[in-house]
Amino acid sequence: MTGSSITAPARSRLHDFLAPDSIAIIGASADPTKRGYKAMVGLIKGNYRGKVYPINPKVPEILGVPTYASLDDIPGPVDLALVCTPASTLTALMADCGRKGVKGAVILASGFRETGPEGAQLESQVMAAARAGGVRIIGPNTSGMFNLHKNVNLLDLRNIKAGDIGFISQSGNMLLALVLEAENNGHVGFSTYVGPGNQTDIGFNDYLRYLGEEENTRVATLYVEGFRDGQRFLQAAREITPVKPVVVYKSGATELGKKAASSHTGALAGSYEMTVDLLKQVGVSVVRHSDQILPVAEGLALMQKARGRRVAVIADGGGQATITSDRLSDAGLEVAELSEPTRKRLAAILLPQASLANPVDVAGTSDADPEVLARCMEIVAEDDNVDAVFLVGMFGGYHTRFAESLLGGEMRAAEAMIELRRRCGKPLVVYSLYAPIKPPPLRRLHEAGLPVYASIEHAVKVLQALAERGLYLQRQHGQPLQQSVAPREDMLAMFARAQTEGRDLFEFEAKNLLRAHDVAVAEERVVQTADELAEVAAYFGEQALAMKVVSKDILHKSDAGGVKLNLKGETALRAAFEHILSNCRSYDANADIRGVLVAPMAKKGIEVIVGVVRDPIFGPVLMFGLGGIFVEILEDVAFRAIPLSRFDAEAMVEQLKGRKILAGVRGEAAADKPALVDLLLKVSSIVSAYPQLSELDLNPVIAYPDGLAVVDARIIINRAMMSA
Amino acid sequence: MTGSSITAPARSRLHDFLAPDSIAIIGASADPTKRGYKAMVGLIKGNYRGKVYPINPKVPEILGVPTYASLDDIPGPVDLALVCTPASTLTALMADCGRKGVKGAVILASGFRETGPEGAQLESQVMAAARAGGVRIIGPNTSGMFNLHKNVNLLDLRNIKAGDIGFISQSGNMLLALVLEAENNGHVGFSTYVGPGNQTDIGFNDYLRYLGEEENTRVATLYVEGFRDGQRFLQAAREITPVKPVVVYKSGATELGKKAASSHTGALAGSYEMTVDLLKQVGVSVVRHSDQILPVAEGLALMQKARGRRVAVIADGGGQATITSDRLSDAGLEVAELSEPTRKRLAAILLPQASLANPVDVAGTSDADPEVLARCMEIVAEDDNVDAVFLVGMFGGYHTRFAESLLGGEMRAAEAMIELRRRCGKPLVVYSLYAPIKPPPLRRLHEAGLPVYASIEHAVKVLQALAERGLYLQRQHGQPLQQSVAPREDMLAMFARAQTEGRDLFEFEAKNLLRAHDVAVAEERVVQTADELAEVAAYFGEQALAMKVVSKDILHKSDAGGVKLNLKGETALRAAFEHILSNCRSYDANADIRGVLVAPMAKKGIEVIVGVVRDPIFGPVLMFGLGGIFVEILEDVAFRAIPLSRFDAEAMVEQLKGRKILAGVRGEAAADKPALVDLLLKVSSIVSAYPQLSELDLNPVIAYPDGLAVVDARIIINRAMMSA
Repeated sequence: MTGSSITAPARSRLHDFLAPDSIAIIGASADPTKRGYKAMVGLIKGNYRGKVYPINPKVPEILGVPTYASLDDIPGPVDLALVCTPASTLTALMADCGRKGVKGAVILASGFRETGPEGAQLESQVMAAARAGGVRIIGPNTSGMFNLHKNVNLLDLRNIKAGDIGFISQSGNMLLALVLEAENNGHVGFSTYVGPGNQTDIGFNDYLRYLGEEENTRVATLYVEGFRDGQRFLQAAREITPVKPVVVYKSGATELGKKAASSHTGALAGSYEMTVDLLKQVGVSVVRHSDQILPVAEGLALMQKARGRRVAVIADGGGQATITSDRLSDAGLEVAELSEPTRKRLAAILLPQASLANPVDVAGTSDADPEVLARCMEIVAEDDNVDAVFLVGMFGGYHTRFAESLLGGEMRAAEAMIELRRRCGKPLVVYSLYAPIKPPPLRRLHEAGLPVYASIEHAVKVLQALAERGLYLQRQHGQPLQQSVAPREDMLAMFARAQTEGRDLFEFEAKNLLRAHDVAVAEERVVQTADELAEVAAYFGEQALAMKVVSKDILHKSDAGGVKLNLKGETALRAAFEHILSNCRSYDANADIRGVLVAPMAKKGIEVIVGVVRDPIFGPVLMFGLGGIFVEILEDVAFRAIPLSRFDAEAMVEQLKGRKILAGVRGEAAADKPALVDLLLKVSSIVSAYPQLSELDLNPVIAYPDGLAVVDARIIINRAMMSA
Repeated sequence: MTGSSITAPARSRLHDFLAPDSIAIIGASADPTKRGYKAMVGLIKGNYRGKVYPINPKVPEILGVPTYASLDDIPGPVDLALVCTPASTLTALMADCGRKGVKGAVILASGFRETGPEGAQLESQVMAAARAGGVRIIGPNTSGMFNLHKNVNLLDLRNIKAGDIGFISQSGNMLLALVLEAENNGHVGFSTYVGPGNQTDIGFNDYLRYLGEEENTRVATLYVEGFRDGQRFLQAAREITPVKPVVVYKSGATELGKKAASSHTGALAGSYEMTVDLLKQVGVSVVRHSDQILPVAEGLALMQKARGRRVAVIADGGGQATITSDRLSDAGLEVAELSEPTRKRLAAILLPQASLANPVDVAGTSDADPEVLARCMEIVAEDDNVDAVFLVGMFGGYHTRFAESLLGGEMRAAEAMIELRRRCGKPLVVYSLYAPIKPPPLRRLHEAGLPVYASIEHAVKVLQALAERGLYLQRQHGQPLQQSVAPREDMLAMFARAQTEGRDLFEFEAKNLLRAHDVAVAEERVVQTADELAEVAAYFGEQALAMKVVSKDILHKSDAGGVKLNLKGETALRAAFEHILSNCRSYDANADIRGVLVAPMAKKGIEVIVGVVRDPIFGPVLMFGLGGIFVEILEDVAFRAIPLSRFDAEAMVEQLKGRKILAGVRGEAAADKPALVDLLLKVSSIVSAYPQLSELDLNPVIAYPDGLAVVDARIIINRAMMSA
């Protein structure tokens, strides 16, 4: 945990049993096809140095290890129990484990929540028994776990290379896929694996904290189908990502499935893209393709981060240089602008036809002298404009392609690259056409932890993850988060009133809440009788006004004829007032009409939307987008978990595809970005202060060159709190 | 060419020398590092059965083959010359080749157009000499060629497996990359390779036609940095794709680089996305990632096409099934809805916990009996709702994962899958975690041409290419193309007048052209004097009118005060007329003002844009998009080469990201899609008839529930034709 500015949290209790000194196998078996046998093999063949206690009352020994009839018969303490018996046995067994002082239990059995209500009930019983005895549960319905640095392997997999990658996966097959991929092409190896199964007790957030502390793990990697407590996970990630990289592949199924949306924000929240935004907010490296999980995790394990997005490319042929430029640009990376001295140094060692602009194309210089590639890498690595170096082409195959005698030069080049990596601290990455056949120079790089890829696309994804992590650490991490405002008595009373009346906030109340906390909202008036309109008309003077009915029973005000626009003068106001009332009464004779809101019409400007939901997985989430079709058709919105930092708010604005519109197009003026950022931060502060607020939609907010107008505001109240 | 409804074109002359019976090596060498030696090795070690004539006046023989002092000394005819000598020798050599009757020359030398004007001049001279002698040129600046079925290998690459993939690549390294990838993981092998180099004589279109005819090639694959004659390429592809698959990787650099855009359409044309749209229009399988070229080419070689997008997934674990669903959806494919009988048949052979909805998760049934996977594939393959079958998971590794004894069952399953493929005609594709380590069952599938992938992402790309090709052949191919209208005398005179006056068409003229060819454009009037306005006002009656200045010298009419909107009645028209004239005179005192256009204001509706450019590479191209920010900010537009089919026009509308807007959102009515399609087809017809028309922008066109209004029309004239 060195290098972190965060106070180290209490050491995770998971260490007690994920690095156990003693293991009981409940349901140990002499039948080689059973998990209770295979786990024994895994421990014994894997040279586990702790104590192994097979529990089986029927046979005296398994694989030469004496068995015990029950947990109680075991002489010493038991850190971890592997439970191989069926679901029905679990409640009693957890009580036994508690009595014995077992710290954690890996429960393989399925037949719990995933099968329906009865299974869910059984799961609760098992959990209650475990909790009563102080036993932590991995699973149930888990594929198992390993901790290779402790020689603990409770899985039925052999020959897994021990290394730096900690992996938590809701799919056992995904572990298997990575292990096989690593066996064939991997650079790094694995530290700890856990299948979290149903996450009954221990969730992704706990495992992430454990991997964050676990000293043999340099990268925490997670395959997630669903988080159970996303809010805690975000908090854990916020603390871990500054210390070590966290890689997440999130499968695309939404967290929530379909739900009735009561606001625009509600309709867009819960999406895959929301999850991605929130994970990135806390520094997670999100991988979108399953075949990039291992390359990205390994790249981060080996190189941790890049200082920025500027990549120098050294190529020995135009084709791959062109592809590389295309892919770097797709990935939001930049082809670094090489300095004049760098170009001169390159010119001195390359043939005249070489291209010195990045991508540097050595144009045949290396055909007879592959070492020149290493020298080029050295030169560009020393350029301050370069954050990472990417060698692209035939390296490793020159001795095959041109002349056997080039092997020596290639091996020397490999050594020079390894030495350069040690010295310069910038990521060096190699794509080679010859990677699939693993010639000696590439094998040498590979052994030295200098990554070699067989796909330009994968290499670029690694560079992207390194740059994004570097930039996160420089810019995003450690930014102060927006503090909650102090809740005001009058506002609390307003919420309480609405709760008592069984309704959400009226628009004017929602705007009052914003005003109460220093959001500039134009002054408005609610009138109950037409007689008040003379004074109102005089007050607003020449401004064009809008009138809207105030009633909890009329949700679609326009449909009910409850809205009139562009009104000026007392006469017009009076006529509109009567119209609205008669329209609304004929729309719904029983509607409880509290009056009519009179508000100045907003000038034309750029429409945006600001929304908040309390996501059942991730907690309060802020959404920002351009209004109208952008949010409705293109779903061009940004999400951040509340509370936000100022960086988060600024990044939300910059993230939109339609951000050019905020900069002013088609003769329209630019939007006041500082005011937008300020609004996002204020909304974050307000939401933190009022748990009564369940959803918020400011739609539209109209942005001007100087300032904003909140035209409509809707706040939905927490129904759970209402019934309380 | 069987199965094609197209009249077979004359057999390509390229056969004469790409499948040569005799080869002269000009610049043959005894130095093993020289191409003139390596090519000899390639021919001799490759068992070339034709005649080889090394030309070298200094040594008597090379590799045991007697040399000749010059071409003239060769006794028999020479089909192909490989020219290894420098650029400066080429002009004379081409004359020699012509005299000798050499049919084609592969010119390796660089130092031509790619080096600047002098090189370009030399290239022209060489071309002229070759043409005079009837010699076709491959290159110059080519990496060479091979035709493995004829044992011709003029490259310096060994052990390339002969097979079905024809490859034309502007990057020699890309060939090398594919060859190495194929050596490691390939299913198919190569037929002919050519590096087109500078395409001085023979371009991609010619090579494509050759591959289309070449009987050993089942898939034509092209790596393209730039087309020289895109229009001919599209024509060739239109003819070849029905006969065999054509795969193109186009590098992202634009065809044109930056150019000053004289219209919205002009600004967006020439993009990578335009090229992709045009290639897809003619049935090309476009690959966007370089590491997908080989898998997609091989998948098409092995399976040609799928009937549709509906994929049945058989999986042995939830994780990969979930990932597969996500990726299928990203790729525009569908998870097939399995019929009730299919589900019942699956239920009969699977454990109760299996999931019978697609993805089918066998949930452990296969752990002890991997053959059940083949039976599941058989059952779903027989379902009419299924177009392709995708097996996902551990297949091939059950005997490693669970018990050695399962190998027999896995091998039998592999045989059953191979047999099923033979029988059912639907694509079967396998993703296996074990693909990287190539266990026997996977090796068996591989040998039998049933493709096995190590990446879900790659497998899905193959399924996508198969579905898109299948749908192209069913729906798009063979649709009649829009005929040109007959050009009208009065319109030709109008173009001639504008040409004489050195200007583009006036808006009213552009609209007249549209009206002349049955595009409904609201009636308008051009007035020269205020006195005409009484009659005009009476004519248009109650309609609100717009007035715009008519002048070739005033391009930005609004800026000049040359536009007035929402006018009603003679008085208003007169005032506006005087205003416009005085504004424009003070804007530009020398402007040639031809009058003022009076047009009815269009009602509100959905704005779209229709544009045409004559792309220097691809010829006339139509663009369609939603108006305003969609085109300006989001660049959400579709392109098609002119002439279009009705299918093309319909597909353009459906392709837009914002297509939901055309269906009507936010209370707006839907757009009249048939009218839009009709407009696109009419514009295609008009553009085909008038080569004088260089660019066209109808912006905006306003779409209503019934019909359209062309609000503004701009036509730019072909400057080249003007000077003629």
